[in-house]
Amino acid sequence: MVGPGDDAAVVRPRPRWDLVMTCDAQVAGRHFLPEWMTPRQIGRRIMEVNLSDVAAMGADPLYALVSLGLPASMLVAEVESLHEGFADALEPHGAAVIGGNLSGVEGAWFCDIAMTGQAPRNRALLRRHAQPGDRILVTGSPGRSAAGLRTLRAIAETIPKRFRNDRTRLADGLDSWRASRPWSVPLVSAYLDPRAQVEAGRLLRGSVNALIDLSDGLPGDLLRVCEASGLDARIDAVRLPDDPELREAAAHFGASPLDFVLGPSDDYQLLMAVEASNAPRVISMIRRRTGAFVTDVGEFIERGSGKPRVLLRPPKGAASGRRGTPSAGLAGWDHFLPGPPNHRS
Amino acid sequence: MVGPGDDAAVVRPRPRWDLVMTCDAQVAGRHFLPEWMTPRQIGRRIMEVNLSDVAAMGADPLYALVSLGLPASMLVAEVESLHEGFADALEPHGAAVIGGNLSGVEGAWFCDIAMTGQAPRNRALLRRHAQPGDRILVTGSPGRSAAGLRTLRAIAETIPKRFRNDRTRLADGLDSWRASRPWSVPLVSAYLDPRAQVEAGRLLRGSVNALIDLSDGLPGDLLRVCEASGLDARIDAVRLPDDPELREAAAHFGASPLDFVLGPSDDYQLLMAVEASNAPRVISMIRRRTGAFVTDVGEFIERGSGKPRVLLRPPKGAASGRRGTPSAGLAGWDHFLPGPPNHRS
Repeated sequence: MVGPGDDAAVVRPRPRWDLVMTCDAQVAGRHFLPEWMTPRQIGRRIMEVNLSDVAAMGADPLYALVSLGLPASMLVAEVESLHEGFADALEPHGAAVIGGNLSGVEGAWFCDIAMTGQAPRNRALLRRHAQPGDRILVTGSPGRSAAGLRTLRAIAETIPKRFRNDRTRLADGLDSWRASRPWSVPLVSAYLDPRAQVEAGRLLRGSVNALIDLSDGLPGDLLRVCEASGLDARIDAVRLPDDPELREAAAHFGASPLDFVLGPSDDYQLLMAVEASNAPRVISMIRRRTGAFVTDVGEFIERGSGKPRVLLRPPKGAASGRRGTPSAGLAGWDHFLPGPPNHRS
Repeated sequence: MVGPGDDAAVVRPRPRWDLVMTCDAQVAGRHFLPEWMTPRQIGRRIMEVNLSDVAAMGADPLYALVSLGLPASMLVAEVESLHEGFADALEPHGAAVIGGNLSGVEGAWFCDIAMTGQAPRNRALLRRHAQPGDRILVTGSPGRSAAGLRTLRAIAETIPKRFRNDRTRLADGLDSWRASRPWSVPLVSAYLDPRAQVEAGRLLRGSVNALIDLSDGLPGDLLRVCEASGLDARIDAVRLPDDPELREAAAHFGASPLDFVLGPSDDYQLLMAVEASNAPRVISMIRRRTGAFVTDVGEFIERGSGKPRVLLRPPKGAASGRRGTPSAGLAGWDHFLPGPPNHRS
């Protein structure tokens, strides 16, 4: 109805639809790495992260409000590029920036986005309705973002310290890895250039009991569903997606792929609780309609005594003693250490 | 429907009502002075500033999303006090915080709020529908906030530099002014502790052609209405509210009250365009229903050639040569210098 330029934007909600509203502030150097990215890429990434929260509600994105806190040294052209990145992310979904404001800052710059989406009445997908026996399904291959970030850091270490803020040097470093270690390119891209699973989220309305996006890491975000639903969960390591590039990255870094899959990783994939009898249909429906792979990685179970837990059945013969991975040869279910603390209120 | 704790909050819009949405980021030291205020006062002020944008749409505030960027050194108790301040501002209007997030920052801390309000369909009050001949009405006494800020700075200058971040020293300074210069207290309070004119905004639905809040200063914000409506405007200085405390402050600082009224000042009062025949009714209705004074300060006129202008008829015998005030003895209308550039997009 009314876009930017008044005291507020005016919108007309669709009758009999609910709205979902979320906000997420991102700070340069903390939530994204400005030296590795163009302003347009940064704008897109910031917006995809917010779209992912709307996707995680099974909602259609509609409106974004953008608050920028920028240093005086930033060029107007860079701010315009940021906005192009916002549009790159929003336009495929028919969503738009409807307002915002700009502040000066002296330290690291920030971008806070408040996003509104819509879902038919009572159809938004929450975290709290997972049921015992529900299968745990994930889209894509969690851990790729963590492996990409690890790769970026390894490339940075090959560059003399004084050039590590130089985008050209970093791009050169990435190019030299591209040839010798082709797995590095898609993993770096998973970190720098994620895509929110908006279409999958929308398609899941009515088919799943609970939905969340993976913004901190598979076990940490799964634990949140457990907390909200009053359940425990079991992940079976042998069921996790077999990702050749993740395996190659792990081999290169002398790690296990599980280090990436089960550690902190902001993949912006979706994790859902689906009635067991319905899981095969959901997997093939999402595959057919969006092209995204969906994998059944475990199940929700009745809560044991004490705090909610995510349990892991480690693969046979897993390497032992690594932090965040299970001990070798464990036959049963291992109590998994949850991810980093939840900063969302 | 669903508050904080999921990927997004879920709300159900009221049928046949529009929503207004706005966001505003505030940075410590730039948009508020943390050393002069308790965290609870800061929280309230930040939220009132956002409520004022909703009031300026003639809308009822509903929901706030809060993004905080805080240094690791901030105490949890201080964050709780901020939230108490948010509630102090929201509760009188039946509004609430429905979500948010927390980031770490190293420099100045920030708080960005996205606020949603509602108005009956097509009844939100915009800037763009002022008509030639409409009277310009303002609530309260614009310029008091600027005078309060000037007072705070003067008090700070009486304190040795190394103590100027010490809240106790500053409070002592304020106390010593309280006794000898009683006008200082309400003016400082107008700056530190503003109240959004939410009730007045709501009551103005259907009675005014355009509405804006005064967040930058009377001429600057009036110019925005002129730009949006394709008009010029004339302010008559002798019609401006006669404010004894503002006069005392001006005398103390060797200034004219007009320096405060016509300079930058974030008063969070409302400025409206009202059909001339309706102005007396609006003035008495707002006075009766909210207790707020409303003053008729001038009128909107057809746009002259060139850019939109705010003209000022200065008072007879005004002191001359002061920056931002009109020349002495000018009989006619003076082209007024507009306020600071608009940072809102």
